[in-house]
Amino acid sequence: MERVEPRTLAGFMELLPNEQILFNQMKEKIENTYKKFGFLPLDTPVIELAEVLLAKAGGETEKQIYRFQKGDTDLALRFDLTVPLAKYVAKNYGNLSFPFRRYQIGKVYRGERAQKGRYREFYQCDIDIIGDGELELINDAEIPAVIYTMFRELGFEDFTVKINNRRILNGLFESVEQKENSVEILRIIDKIEKIGKEEVIEEFKKLGLKDGQIKNILDFIEIEGTSDEKIEKLEGLGITNPTYMQGVEELKTVIKNVRLFGVPEANFTVDLTIARGLDYYTGTVYETFLNKYREIGSVCSGGRYENLAEYYTEKSLPGVGVSIGLTRLFYKLNELQIIKANRKSIADILIIPMLENLEEPIKLATKLRNEGINTEIYLNDKKLKAKFKYADKLEIPYVIVIGEDEIKSNEITLKNMLTGNEEKIPMDEKAIVNIVKK
Amino acid sequence: MERVEPRTLAGFMELLPNEQILFNQMKEKIENTYKKFGFLPLDTPVIELAEVLLAKAGGETEKQIYRFQKGDTDLALRFDLTVPLAKYVAKNYGNLSFPFRRYQIGKVYRGERAQKGRYREFYQCDIDIIGDGELELINDAEIPAVIYTMFRELGFEDFTVKINNRRILNGLFESVEQKENSVEILRIIDKIEKIGKEEVIEEFKKLGLKDGQIKNILDFIEIEGTSDEKIEKLEGLGITNPTYMQGVEELKTVIKNVRLFGVPEANFTVDLTIARGLDYYTGTVYETFLNKYREIGSVCSGGRYENLAEYYTEKSLPGVGVSIGLTRLFYKLNELQIIKANRKSIADILIIPMLENLEEPIKLATKLRNEGINTEIYLNDKKLKAKFKYADKLEIPYVIVIGEDEIKSNEITLKNMLTGNEEKIPMDEKAIVNIVKK
Repeated sequence: MERVEPRTLAGFMELLPNEQILFNQMKEKIENTYKKFGFLPLDTPVIELAEVLLAKAGGETEKQIYRFQKGDTDLALRFDLTVPLAKYVAKNYGNLSFPFRRYQIGKVYRGERAQKGRYREFYQCDIDIIGDGELELINDAEIPAVIYTMFRELGFEDFTVKINNRRILNGLFESVEQKENSVEILRIIDKIEKIGKEEVIEEFKKLGLKDGQIKNILDFIEIEGTSDEKIEKLEGLGITNPTYMQGVEELKTVIKNVRLFGVPEANFTVDLTIARGLDYYTGTVYETFLNKYREIGSVCSGGRYENLAEYYTEKSLPGVGVSIGLTRLFYKLNELQIIKANRKSIADILIIPMLENLEEPIKLATKLRNEGINTEIYLNDKKLKAKFKYADKLEIPYVIVIGEDEIKSNEITLKNMLTGNEEKIPMDEKAIVNIVKK
Repeated sequence: MERVEPRTLAGFMELLPNEQILFNQMKEKIENTYKKFGFLPLDTPVIELAEVLLAKAGGETEKQIYRFQKGDTDLALRFDLTVPLAKYVAKNYGNLSFPFRRYQIGKVYRGERAQKGRYREFYQCDIDIIGDGELELINDAEIPAVIYTMFRELGFEDFTVKINNRRILNGLFESVEQKENSVEILRIIDKIEKIGKEEVIEEFKKLGLKDGQIKNILDFIEIEGTSDEKIEKLEGLGITNPTYMQGVEELKTVIKNVRLFGVPEANFTVDLTIARGLDYYTGTVYETFLNKYREIGSVCSGGRYENLAEYYTEKSLPGVGVSIGLTRLFYKLNELQIIKANRKSIADILIIPMLENLEEPIKLATKLRNEGINTEIYLNDKKLKAKFKYADKLEIPYVIVIGEDEIKSNEITLKNMLTGNEEKIPMDEKAIVNIVKK
């Protein structure tokens, strides 16, 4: 027979079972946090009509998209979960209750150039709160509380949700009459840590900015201090256009309410350089950093937008949301050995039968499963040593051997495979649960 | 602005939140059952190299496939979870422990002709047990136990796992010297309920079968009785070729062990007409029917195969497994009103604040979330009536209103939205949990 080499496409994550168990645990923790805050589940198709999916897209996104014909139909794979949400809300407007709070966890597709740590298929885990015509600012303060709860749940303590407001940046650029250069200016600001202040000034000059304008921008990005001090300094900069003033006022309210939502001071801060792309977000913006691993970049980002679905409906649908790129996060955490795929089995207990009649081992397994213990029976006829090797290799936490003696005495030995400890207990599911669930 | 009509492709399921909640509950129950039996999780890419995915495919499958170019690469979307499993096991052979027990729940794609209840994107929920070189027959008996546990978990009682063995059919056809017509004969047998025995005889004759051959086949498919009686009659048919005899012996052993695995007599039976396609399964085969809803067809099917990955590796990898097509099952159960999407909210409690300062409502929400209660705070500034309407529309089970009075008295009223009952209790998460978790 002619054989094909079994291989997986570059840029597509495919994990070994121990890694998959860890990945799924993280995904589940994220989902549970979203549910705790009452977000509703959504699951849209991976394939959409290209016309629908690309109603808004352009530039880079369009180039990266997986697009193809099937019969006469022009199809594309979703590249994020926001466009499908916009389509969904516009389509089902009459059947939804607003504010519509939804989460979606699913794979998205971008045909990026293949390189280490870049994925073409990756999980996004999104939440959004969509208002009908209006959505009050207090919602912007709940999002950091969700992020905080989620990263605590994922086992992190030292992380910071950075919060800014796009109106402040827009107002600043308006005040120095550089609205048309805002994209370019933000790009330059973004590099300041890497290239230094002098180089930034040079680049500003090349862009045609005058000394006074440069000074104003630098004064702004050099604002330091606590969140409250930053806001106070923003108010003292002397910029008075309505956009700027509204932005500062919003940021102040959001920060006040983030405290109310119980996010500790250590886990959030005002960061005036956060901008999150340029044409989508209009108010509050968020990025989240693991402080010891800044090199990973933002691990959870998002913000407030004026209008979710303007390409599909005349309804005004303002919203606020954030997204985690779970596949990349998992890859990075794993690479930096911040997380470790310890667990190789789903089974908590392996029952090894050493007799012809499997009745008793199977009965015990069924009882244990009913108690919520994942239980596997080793069903293949091997030597005891080979059976233990299987448990060992899969790192199944507990092993019970059942032979004629155990049936007669109604006593079993529960072996903890990690410590090597053996305990003689009655062959009774409750006795076993007591130890395993400890 | 020019707008695009927001629409979803025909043949792609996209649910409203209440339906999605129900769908996810079913998916979770299936996953939890698979985990209870110790199956390991797997999550392979949706996109694969066409060459890899289509190593074996042909005919109908190939026509239905979503296949396209990206750059120079010939890609295809997976059309089942078995081929990706074969690729995965062949590729990672050295890193897996055998028997390799894995589950995978994910979307697959088939560009079928669009028609009601037919999906082009649908969830499959698979388990397989793969042996290295050999896999003992006892594994075939565990599968019905998994199916039984799963459908009980899904709330069904009156269902039957039908079990057969392909060797018996092959042996029968061999005995009447009709091996080369086996596909056609099975197709005719399959129609007997619809067209009746006389018509079947006519079709057999057209195929060139002689009276004696027809009689032997009819004697076979007319075998009736309990599972044990059927097996006894099979043994008495006088067919003696090794294929047939091995098939009967295997079926006998599997049935004996299915009992051992605790599947009640009412939930399984030998059905000699079950065949499950022709070129893949080689031994035990399963189909599962909801007895009151036979029109749905089999809701969980699979079987034993000789060699999982022969197109990728020279290793012999026998296996046994089953699959649920969850999307179609959900559609059918919903259509027949066997299941009903009652729940419209993920939140167990909606807290409605009726005061300026949200500190206490937010504190209470955080405490409730820590107790495992999904809690939403109504954050938008509406009249009390509008807030209750939101709870009503989303059918959130419990509502707590917190105003100045409640803060002063430290007492709240917990309203059960289903019964209308109101209970005055301390503003304390434990007191609330006691009622809500009841």
